[in-house]
Amino acid sequence: MNDNPISQTAGRLALLRAELTRGGLAGFIQPRGDEHQGEYVPPYAERLAWLTGFTGSAGLAIVLQSRAVVFADGRYTLQVRAQVDTALFETRHLVDEPPGEWLAANAAKGDRIGFDPRLHTPDGIVRLRQGAERAGAGLVAVERNLIDAVWSGQPRPPVAPVVPHPLAFAGRSAADKRADLTDRLAKQGYKAAIISDPSSIAWLLNIRGADVPHTPLPLSFAILNDDGTVDLFIDPRKLGSGLGEHFGNGVRVAAPEAFGPALADLGRKSDVAPAKILTDSATVSVWVVSQLEAGGSTVVRGTCICALPKACKNEGELEGTRAAHRRDGAALTRYLCWLSAEAPKGTLGEIASSDRLLEFRRGGEHFRDTSFDTISGAGPNGAIVHYRATPATERRIEPDMLYLVDSGAQYLDGTTDVTRTIAVGTPTGEQRDRFTRVLKGHIAVALARFPKGTSGSQLDTLARASLWEAGLDYDHGTGHGVGSYLSVHEGPHRISKIPNTVALEPGMIVSNEPGYYKTGEYGIRIENLVTVREIDVGGERPMLGFETLTHAPIDRALIDLGLLSPREISWLDAYHSRVRETLTPLLDAAAAAWLARATRPIQDGPGY
Amino acid sequence: MNDNPISQTAGRLALLRAELTRGGLAGFIQPRGDEHQGEYVPPYAERLAWLTGFTGSAGLAIVLQSRAVVFADGRYTLQVRAQVDTALFETRHLVDEPPGEWLAANAAKGDRIGFDPRLHTPDGIVRLRQGAERAGAGLVAVERNLIDAVWSGQPRPPVAPVVPHPLAFAGRSAADKRADLTDRLAKQGYKAAIISDPSSIAWLLNIRGADVPHTPLPLSFAILNDDGTVDLFIDPRKLGSGLGEHFGNGVRVAAPEAFGPALADLGRKSDVAPAKILTDSATVSVWVVSQLEAGGSTVVRGTCICALPKACKNEGELEGTRAAHRRDGAALTRYLCWLSAEAPKGTLGEIASSDRLLEFRRGGEHFRDTSFDTISGAGPNGAIVHYRATPATERRIEPDMLYLVDSGAQYLDGTTDVTRTIAVGTPTGEQRDRFTRVLKGHIAVALARFPKGTSGSQLDTLARASLWEAGLDYDHGTGHGVGSYLSVHEGPHRISKIPNTVALEPGMIVSNEPGYYKTGEYGIRIENLVTVREIDVGGERPMLGFETLTHAPIDRALIDLGLLSPREISWLDAYHSRVRETLTPLLDAAAAAWLARATRPIQDGPGY
Repeated sequence: MNDNPISQTAGRLALLRAELTRGGLAGFIQPRGDEHQGEYVPPYAERLAWLTGFTGSAGLAIVLQSRAVVFADGRYTLQVRAQVDTALFETRHLVDEPPGEWLAANAAKGDRIGFDPRLHTPDGIVRLRQGAERAGAGLVAVERNLIDAVWSGQPRPPVAPVVPHPLAFAGRSAADKRADLTDRLAKQGYKAAIISDPSSIAWLLNIRGADVPHTPLPLSFAILNDDGTVDLFIDPRKLGSGLGEHFGNGVRVAAPEAFGPALADLGRKSDVAPAKILTDSATVSVWVVSQLEAGGSTVVRGTCICALPKACKNEGELEGTRAAHRRDGAALTRYLCWLSAEAPKGTLGEIASSDRLLEFRRGGEHFRDTSFDTISGAGPNGAIVHYRATPATERRIEPDMLYLVDSGAQYLDGTTDVTRTIAVGTPTGEQRDRFTRVLKGHIAVALARFPKGTSGSQLDTLARASLWEAGLDYDHGTGHGVGSYLSVHEGPHRISKIPNTVALEPGMIVSNEPGYYKTGEYGIRIENLVTVREIDVGGERPMLGFETLTHAPIDRALIDLGLLSPREISWLDAYHSRVRETLTPLLDAAAAAWLARATRPIQDGPGY
Repeated sequence: MNDNPISQTAGRLALLRAELTRGGLAGFIQPRGDEHQGEYVPPYAERLAWLTGFTGSAGLAIVLQSRAVVFADGRYTLQVRAQVDTALFETRHLVDEPPGEWLAANAAKGDRIGFDPRLHTPDGIVRLRQGAERAGAGLVAVERNLIDAVWSGQPRPPVAPVVPHPLAFAGRSAADKRADLTDRLAKQGYKAAIISDPSSIAWLLNIRGADVPHTPLPLSFAILNDDGTVDLFIDPRKLGSGLGEHFGNGVRVAAPEAFGPALADLGRKSDVAPAKILTDSATVSVWVVSQLEAGGSTVVRGTCICALPKACKNEGELEGTRAAHRRDGAALTRYLCWLSAEAPKGTLGEIASSDRLLEFRRGGEHFRDTSFDTISGAGPNGAIVHYRATPATERRIEPDMLYLVDSGAQYLDGTTDVTRTIAVGTPTGEQRDRFTRVLKGHIAVALARFPKGTSGSQLDTLARASLWEAGLDYDHGTGHGVGSYLSVHEGPHRISKIPNTVALEPGMIVSNEPGYYKTGEYGIRIENLVTVREIDVGGERPMLGFETLTHAPIDRALIDLGLLSPREISWLDAYHSRVRETLTPLLDAAAAAWLARATRPIQDGPGY
């Protein structure tokens, strides 16, 4: 399991420690993220993996002269121990044994511990700093990342081409968006907003890139000024010839090196002192804040100014996403039809299965990529929430097994994300009970009516109550925001028991994905994407509800009809009718016939 | 409506402004609270009412030389305009038009604005300070409150006697509580904890006082030291001769004047430097923090060390509260029986009605006081959530009206709080629909099963979903914590849409009180107290649920049976059976006969 030969890891660690000595440092802190704090990072920024071998999507290493440690969260407890040479690195739980506490216990008085200020947010560095200070040590921002200094053969930052995102898909011109946001800036007395989240830059300028997998991000930084102009800091090699015209006069392009001086100039050149600058506390780095403050600006750590308008999809985007979901549903249905014939043979592997799903999708109009690595989990692998099949771990899909497939695609007109759980052969009574409870939670969210101002946190319990009845639960959120040909995980809203005060607003897209997992046996998840809509129920308050965007049958064989209320049964039948009516015109005769049976009224009896 | 003659208010304002001039100040900020930030304050601390005439339970005044303003929240919008002379004071919404913003707009550059550091928490002062600074002004802590300096005839602080709270009711000795908390202090590396919430002092030392209405608080401050001793700062006149023995060796008593020096000494005399001191961010004052910091201590603003153990009632307290609720339910039932005969006559006033309820309660064993001012609202007055009947506002209870009565009592063995809504004559279809939706929400909370770790915030939506279905809602929380012969509003838990991450734990008491209010017509609320219990539902997770403590019939005449599910009907019938079985032995024959009819199975037909 350890892909990093020990001698190689030891050598890298020795190089880093020599670099510490050269810099007069007692240690160095390396997180997993890049300077945008993103979920996906380009190869040059995979410093944590290079140093430690650990490839999880979140984590952090601290290297002192005599000790080193890798922190990973509960998703990666097993993986980190398998990938890291535990003779060289201790491993710790990122949440339960936080790095700040480790520093408090292990740093020595007077230690100067380095960190790359581009890779940490101010909020993120606070506890590390407090921990170090409890040991009498201090944190020191370094000019150049110490891994970069010793990583020979480090890849170059990506320079994937940036392309305009057509108005037909964006639904609204970049100039219009800029004007709107400038109004908001002015009203709140801001001189400028720093845009450190590349998905916000993509949205604001109606552009898309290809710098990281699965999400069409143009890695870059931008400043939105109070005069409505934007300064975009991006490697010029990414920009094709047509982009100047697309940007128009309101956008100035500069090299990434110009970003720091421009940040300082915001304060120095402001006619109001101090200049008040809005930053996004989730993605802004310590380095950006220090450049702003060096110029005399007052930095407000809030929410990215693009986050809320980006989340509230306009009518053009909604039309696009509905079209994308129709194509995606047709591809998924053809796959499920194929799977219903293949799976019972007992020879289909998890990887071959997800490859086939990709083939069905790839043929669709506007298809660009999957929106994340498909989760294709047979039997016990379905119970691993963030499972990714590898040749070493994959199982065959066999009769009397549940199979969970969570997948999505990036289309030019929309981003999809859907999970279905399929019974191969005959499910057990327990499996049908659990699946039906998950379905009841899914339906409770789908049918929810709630007043304007309600947050996703307030709806989370609706998805869990039927599981709680039986003493069961699931250990993940119920729903995440989804972008429009952008990030499949998009804020600022979500449906989660973790408190979140962002109100759901019309046009927001969010997943509805309760689940149940029995370790070592099977996993269940039912996921559709929904969008928030105004609804009229004839009462006193302005009310909202959800429109389901995803079209795909829910496995009737797994439903215990006796657990469903009449209202739940009508939701299910109506949903299946809509799926059938929407997708049948897009299917060949065989798939259409399969779909007709898969979506017939539930009271006609269970199973296919 | 304005009880403060204008000339008197103008005179007081002039006195305050003269005092400003003497102190070289441009203004003064006076909040409603006292130095414990409590809900109830003694007469000497009613400075806001003395200055402005406004008597609401929350608010704040800012007086500049040329302008003055009173802030009140949405509950008091009408009241503040009626009570305050608007020629002298502007009125503003405390939340929507926050005082800090007002300062930013109205303070002048260079202004020094005074505040009493004993009356503000550090969190509370931040926005005021930021607002002042945006105007180029500054806040200045004053040594002596400016109202006190000009208020001739200001009452003295109360010196009500403090009495021991018997072990039979407290359920646990004070020495045992101290030992437990000292362990917690030590584990977290604290030198001491400051106890600024008098209800925590009452709980920790097993004492009760009588310094404010409705809640048996001994107003005082305390320091819990890491050696298990307590320093109690209290006016010695409050302490009777038996208390020294009750306190034992572990408690040192000192005068209130000694509190400041003792705070400073914590840091000065600590053998570990800096001494780490835990404070309660909700009740600690700027003054306390500054005394601690002057002594060199590091101040941690967290939750009162007593808050969680105080909230989780022990078995002795739970037995007491169950007994108190039986007596309280019997008194309420006798009242409801009496009301069923009196109300249809159409002559009963709201005040006479609540007076009669008090008489029924007063006869009960261990009765000490009401736990808050009874809300007795007929018809439209029931729609005013925090209504308090006065001779000027009260209505007669008449046929074809809903009557809402929210009341509670302090018994030595427990604190009660219950709301019932009664139909006088025949309710309308709409009223029955609304009442039944509120009841469905109440039952959903009562029946909730949830995993350990769940917060009250996660349960709030269960109480609202049936109203949301019809486009309705209510604008208050669903439940507040309740003390044990202590505050009827007690933290740290609650059931509310406002995020709260405190997990519900066994023994916590919380109210379950959804409602519906139609302005100008009627109000509905159904409130029982419940306590958290471990339950076994045979699943995988440790689960919790609620035991209902309150015993009183729910008006059958207001229930629309067609809206209830079979599960809801069985809850209601089982609840009514329990009420009947529990209370009948405590009632005379007439009341018992009335209760038997009021609690018969709902399917026997509606109404009494």
